[in-house]
Amino acid sequence: MRAAAYAAGVPSSGLRFTKGHGTENDFVLLPDPDGDLGLTLGLVRALCDRRAGVGADGVLRVVLTAAVPEVAHLADEARWFMDYRNADGSLAEMCGNGIRVYARYLVDAGYARPGTLRLATRDGVRTVELAAIGDVTVDMGPAQSFPAAVSARLAGRDYSAVRVDIGNPHAVVVVTHPVALLDLSQAPELLAEQFPDGGNVEFVRKLADGVLELRVHERGVGETRSCGTGACAAVAAVLGRGGGGGGGGGTAYLVRVPGGELAVTAHPGGGFLLTGPAVLVGDGRLRADWLAGVPE
Amino acid sequence: MRAAAYAAGVPSSGLRFTKGHGTENDFVLLPDPDGDLGLTLGLVRALCDRRAGVGADGVLRVVLTAAVPEVAHLADEARWFMDYRNADGSLAEMCGNGIRVYARYLVDAGYARPGTLRLATRDGVRTVELAAIGDVTVDMGPAQSFPAAVSARLAGRDYSAVRVDIGNPHAVVVVTHPVALLDLSQAPELLAEQFPDGGNVEFVRKLADGVLELRVHERGVGETRSCGTGACAAVAAVLGRGGGGGGGGGTAYLVRVPGGELAVTAHPGGGFLLTGPAVLVGDGRLRADWLAGVPE
Repeated sequence: MRAAAYAAGVPSSGLRFTKGHGTENDFVLLPDPDGDLGLTLGLVRALCDRRAGVGADGVLRVVLTAAVPEVAHLADEARWFMDYRNADGSLAEMCGNGIRVYARYLVDAGYARPGTLRLATRDGVRTVELAAIGDVTVDMGPAQSFPAAVSARLAGRDYSAVRVDIGNPHAVVVVTHPVALLDLSQAPELLAEQFPDGGNVEFVRKLADGVLELRVHERGVGETRSCGTGACAAVAAVLGRGGGGGGGGGTAYLVRVPGGELAVTAHPGGGFLLTGPAVLVGDGRLRADWLAGVPE
Repeated sequence: MRAAAYAAGVPSSGLRFTKGHGTENDFVLLPDPDGDLGLTLGLVRALCDRRAGVGADGVLRVVLTAAVPEVAHLADEARWFMDYRNADGSLAEMCGNGIRVYARYLVDAGYARPGTLRLATRDGVRTVELAAIGDVTVDMGPAQSFPAAVSARLAGRDYSAVRVDIGNPHAVVVVTHPVALLDLSQAPELLAEQFPDGGNVEFVRKLADGVLELRVHERGVGETRSCGTGACAAVAAVLGRGGGGGGGGGTAYLVRVPGGELAVTAHPGGGFLLTGPAVLVGDGRLRADWLAGVPE
């Protein structure tokens, strides 16, 4: 038996998990309060494998901040740490849909009470608001949009785009035709001098005042059903500001993505609030046999 | 609450399920021995949704043959009925990978003993062999191959193919280049007069004596990671017979598919034995909240 993942903190009865999604951006949640679980690259990939595993866009390990040396200094501010991994096993700083599902799980499992939660991420502490049921809101922080136009090439055509940074880099293309007409099976190309680390590309159309439709191609992933930072970046681009300017009350947008609807509020104090559903589908236990076959 | 699926035989504690796969052809198994569960089209689709549900190619309802009027006449021959549904909710007669996973589940759950099982399907009774662990073999029955060449068109090129029926219709194209080079993102086209109900298309290359590699495009689904009937059809086409001819001992083939390896034995008495892995990944319970949101 290759029992690497199995031996590292997994009880012989198997490993508990919960499957959840936010606007069809889906996750395997692993409850591991005390940080006993050795979450290897191989285990993340095996869990996220949509045919040979459970299947998800990423893994959310539910662990006390104090139990993780890398973020333990945040433990006084935020009791829980969202240890997010992409499906390919790489670390990710933040995930706007993931943190909402994470918060819903904490409340549902009795680890936290409804109301305002402060959660540690690799990108610092984030504030989440949720009631006992229903949508979950996360403060995504400020965005920075850049005045100089950038370029995104799709299917041989060059589009003028707005570069927006909101934790990660985005190129937002505003189009006037239905986004359903685009072929996103190939990755849009960005210029290396404008996006040295690549970036997500959003195609957005204004449907009505305060209503946008959006499709997104995520860096290293492909087209996805939803992207929380992408929805905020799209609103920043449409508003022509980073969310911190303006004045008066917040500006609210409804953003339709292939996986559902998100509400984005750009508030004058700076920053974006992202609101949307967080659904827990079911709970299970991975078999010890299956775990034993997972490579490191 | 739209509680159609929920009300129909689902206990308030939620619905138990197991996820499993055979060469990455994956299934949600629903234990329902007494046939209490109202398995609606909406529930099948919601379960198989890879982002908003559990995710699978199909559902295997585990039910006693005697509890299902449609097949109750087979109850003396076969205690258990494999109620297989495709991800789109449609009924399917048989599934060579599914029946192996189904048999493994029966033995694992204590519903059946290792050895020879006779299982009812919508295509009649099938015989399965399995030990307490390891691969599972199913007798897929005879294939019928047709001498007249048929045609399959892919990416503007016409290929000569062999038509094989093994419960469902197949067009098998033998190629001499690696099958990895093919673009199966578009459906191969078959002539309506040769395949009035459409068919699966297999591209197969001989790697060595008794070793084939195979990619398959399944009717109404797209390219899949594996296809049990397709593996048998490919062997039938390569042998130039339906499996019932020849003479002497059985002819064994190893068939490499994208999701793993299958062994196919064409035995002289007629019929094909399909052998391969059957993996149970984990067990869970769908949430009552989630079930309540499933449309009929």
